[in-house]
Amino acid sequence: MSTFQAFSPKTGEPYGAAIHEWSKLEVDQVITSAHNVQGAFSSTSPTARALAMNAIADAIEVVRPLLIESACAESGLPEGRIAGEVTRTVVQIKLFADLVATGDHFKAVIDLADPNYSPAPRADLRKQNQALGTVAIFAASNFPLAFSVAGGDSASALAAGNCVVVKAHPSHPNTSAIVAEAVRSGLKSVGLPQEIFAVVQGENPEITHWLAEHPDISAVGFTGSGKVGKILIDIASNRSIPIPVFAEMGSLNPVFVTSSAILERGVELAKASVDSALLGSGQFCTKPGIFFIPSGEAGEIFVADIEKYLSTLSSGPLLNKGIADRYNQSISHLAKDGALKVISGQANEAGYGVTPTLFITDWMSVASNKELLEEHFGPTAIVIYADESEFVGIASQIEGQLTATIQGSESDSVSELLAKLSEKAGRVIWNGFSTGVAVTAAMQHGGQWPASSSHTTSVGLDSLYRFVRPVAYQNLPDSALPPALQKSNPWKIERIINGVRSKL
Amino acid sequence: MSTFQAFSPKTGEPYGAAIHEWSKLEVDQVITSAHNVQGAFSSTSPTARALAMNAIADAIEVVRPLLIESACAESGLPEGRIAGEVTRTVVQIKLFADLVATGDHFKAVIDLADPNYSPAPRADLRKQNQALGTVAIFAASNFPLAFSVAGGDSASALAAGNCVVVKAHPSHPNTSAIVAEAVRSGLKSVGLPQEIFAVVQGENPEITHWLAEHPDISAVGFTGSGKVGKILIDIASNRSIPIPVFAEMGSLNPVFVTSSAILERGVELAKASVDSALLGSGQFCTKPGIFFIPSGEAGEIFVADIEKYLSTLSSGPLLNKGIADRYNQSISHLAKDGALKVISGQANEAGYGVTPTLFITDWMSVASNKELLEEHFGPTAIVIYADESEFVGIASQIEGQLTATIQGSESDSVSELLAKLSEKAGRVIWNGFSTGVAVTAAMQHGGQWPASSSHTTSVGLDSLYRFVRPVAYQNLPDSALPPALQKSNPWKIERIINGVRSKL
Repeated sequence: MSTFQAFSPKTGEPYGAAIHEWSKLEVDQVITSAHNVQGAFSSTSPTARALAMNAIADAIEVVRPLLIESACAESGLPEGRIAGEVTRTVVQIKLFADLVATGDHFKAVIDLADPNYSPAPRADLRKQNQALGTVAIFAASNFPLAFSVAGGDSASALAAGNCVVVKAHPSHPNTSAIVAEAVRSGLKSVGLPQEIFAVVQGENPEITHWLAEHPDISAVGFTGSGKVGKILIDIASNRSIPIPVFAEMGSLNPVFVTSSAILERGVELAKASVDSALLGSGQFCTKPGIFFIPSGEAGEIFVADIEKYLSTLSSGPLLNKGIADRYNQSISHLAKDGALKVISGQANEAGYGVTPTLFITDWMSVASNKELLEEHFGPTAIVIYADESEFVGIASQIEGQLTATIQGSESDSVSELLAKLSEKAGRVIWNGFSTGVAVTAAMQHGGQWPASSSHTTSVGLDSLYRFVRPVAYQNLPDSALPPALQKSNPWKIERIINGVRSKL
Repeated sequence: MSTFQAFSPKTGEPYGAAIHEWSKLEVDQVITSAHNVQGAFSSTSPTARALAMNAIADAIEVVRPLLIESACAESGLPEGRIAGEVTRTVVQIKLFADLVATGDHFKAVIDLADPNYSPAPRADLRKQNQALGTVAIFAASNFPLAFSVAGGDSASALAAGNCVVVKAHPSHPNTSAIVAEAVRSGLKSVGLPQEIFAVVQGENPEITHWLAEHPDISAVGFTGSGKVGKILIDIASNRSIPIPVFAEMGSLNPVFVTSSAILERGVELAKASVDSALLGSGQFCTKPGIFFIPSGEAGEIFVADIEKYLSTLSSGPLLNKGIADRYNQSISHLAKDGALKVISGQANEAGYGVTPTLFITDWMSVASNKELLEEHFGPTAIVIYADESEFVGIASQIEGQLTATIQGSESDSVSELLAKLSEKAGRVIWNGFSTGVAVTAAMQHGGQWPASSSHTTSVGLDSLYRFVRPVAYQNLPDSALPPALQKSNPWKIERIINGVRSKL
């Protein structure tokens, strides 16, 4: 029986238990078991579903100390960050509990029969959202809790009534096992079958195929690299029955800095920009990876401020050896381009430690080195001089992004730039930072291709709607209708009846 | 300069003007022209957009007599049907006008900044739906108005603020030209650029590629065959920037008939079933193409009733020579299968006339002839004997469907069958018929693959949401925000502010 091992990024030494590497048979079995209880789970009432979500959240809260110990060790991230992630994980599950308790997620619409309806008589029609089925979720490396086993993707899929099979990320398998056990104990505590939720572990890349190709998997949620995201999209679209893949594949998160912003608050802005790029060792999908700054004196002052500040900073270790190796390769490869000025922070040579490194160049040089417009995971960013008059043109040329930011002042005219950025990015930011993604209704975490594979969000309440589909019922006897659509409205949810909202 | 020609299905003779076949250069030019006015159109206010939609609807109403003459001649469909389609086309455009007038389609959500928000302080976040960009719509052959140039796809895309370039169906080019002119005159009458809407014509299959591959096309709407739908999906996913394809690709629309339904109302049900299968010469995507009826005496009586009624019926001509030829090929090919009983109506030999033909077989025989489970366009259906106890198993084995129907009686226990059908179909019907798709909020016209390429609907108000994407704005100065998100709510639309609906 094959096993694998976690490693501590701080030391590079093995950490924790030997983890069982799942076989195809085992993966197939948990999918089948989940599929077998799918109908029972998706037909739970709003109250029962909310109870289950809250029980899961509570069960995770109970193991907080274990999670902090394990996730800190496996990710190398600081305790404050991990503690915040536990809180975020619990909060987002509870927000979904609140949503499904209302039944609003059914989006129930009832149009009563109308023989005089134009252009033709209308039968009784009632529509509600229904769960897609059993969903495969691929956990991210960089959020060992909030985008991992019981993170936003799993929480939204469960809240929508889907059974969930998670592929844990092999960088934090011990943490994943603790969360899996907590979720299953939460389900058990409210009398629901534990088969609703399963976690499969392994380093074998075939597991990705076993999950995405399985006929009982109805959708995929993914957070990770563009490379793996595109593999999943290919698998899913080549199935005999294609399924949707909701892939969040990262982003450069461009920042456009105006001269007047630098004049107004250059030193502070330089520091905050570097802090944002280095936050979590630069391993956020919302890391500002590319800055456009004005050519000329203002930009030069800004670069000098960045350089001075960066020289004082070191970075925590990266999440795993693969990420650290790729980072070092990218950095040394970029450093060979003579058109780039290299500025560095302090080296961290323990475990998977690396040296924070920024590159300075100009927009003309980018044309000859397209690598500058690729995402580089880790504590690095590209700073590019350009004429402010070119900003709109540059925004037109960049690919889709999760976020895009303008750092400006009140005197700047930025309406054209804002409009262009809103065509590329899911979230447009003014004088703020893209790192820090609020879990809230107005959040949009998902941008145009290649940042995301769809126009949906993977953060916030609307992420639930990725995992449902509307079904209309025509002329059904009341007792045969799903409860959300029955005349008596047994769940007392809000419905739109003949165009008017009603809780009756 | 190349041209092509419409033909009258009733006579097979040429009809109308010589139609210009568009070149790649011309197609590129209208896309570019549309793209150039995209920003101006998508930023129109709800009032202006609604005004434009109503002006388009009114302009179509003005040319009603021309449309009836042309569409009847080009489609061979009866005047009553075409008149109804003009009405439906106008009504659905006006329903979208009513929706966008409210501004509800923005789904504006505002979460105010909150330093005490958990798990982390929250910046001011405001989200709204925005138009995707310029959209390519591929018109259907079988609804020369309601799913054609200004049909539901175009109407929903325009209402959402997208410019639209339609590929007209070459079966009804004169009708398409009249509608195109009406839409453009409607836009002109309210002072909007006519470039917002363009229709390209031609028989050249390359036009499909020119449209779907163009970098300024942001999405595709399609109603037609699975074959062409899959070509579009392939083109769209192989672009350097993939775009969504909302393809409605037809369906078998299975009907499950119980013994008690036959006992209760067999003669009437047999007639109504045949009428539904033959409606519009069997050229509806919602045509009931396959009936499962109980083995034994009840089923045999039902088949006898069908046969008796069908023998009295003829069908109108099919829409074009290609459809008629494919119909005749399918029918003669199926008739060679000795396991099928063939029953026929009366022949229509004029123009593209055909003979209505039903095939009777049993579920066991279907295993050896998968062609029985394919969609056959035209006045035909397959009637399959099966044990009622097998219905749930059969429902599990069939592919995704636009609709699925049970014809039963109060005494039937159908909850399991209903649940299974709701996993396959977008609309589940009890004791009714799938033909006749009400244009209403509770409609879902779209089913699981291969009926549709997504979980969206192409009929009803929700079809608009295919053509928008949410964008969040963080921390923007009020004057830089899109109007729907500004503090003063200049358009007086309903927004959700900190979780509470408000028109303030």
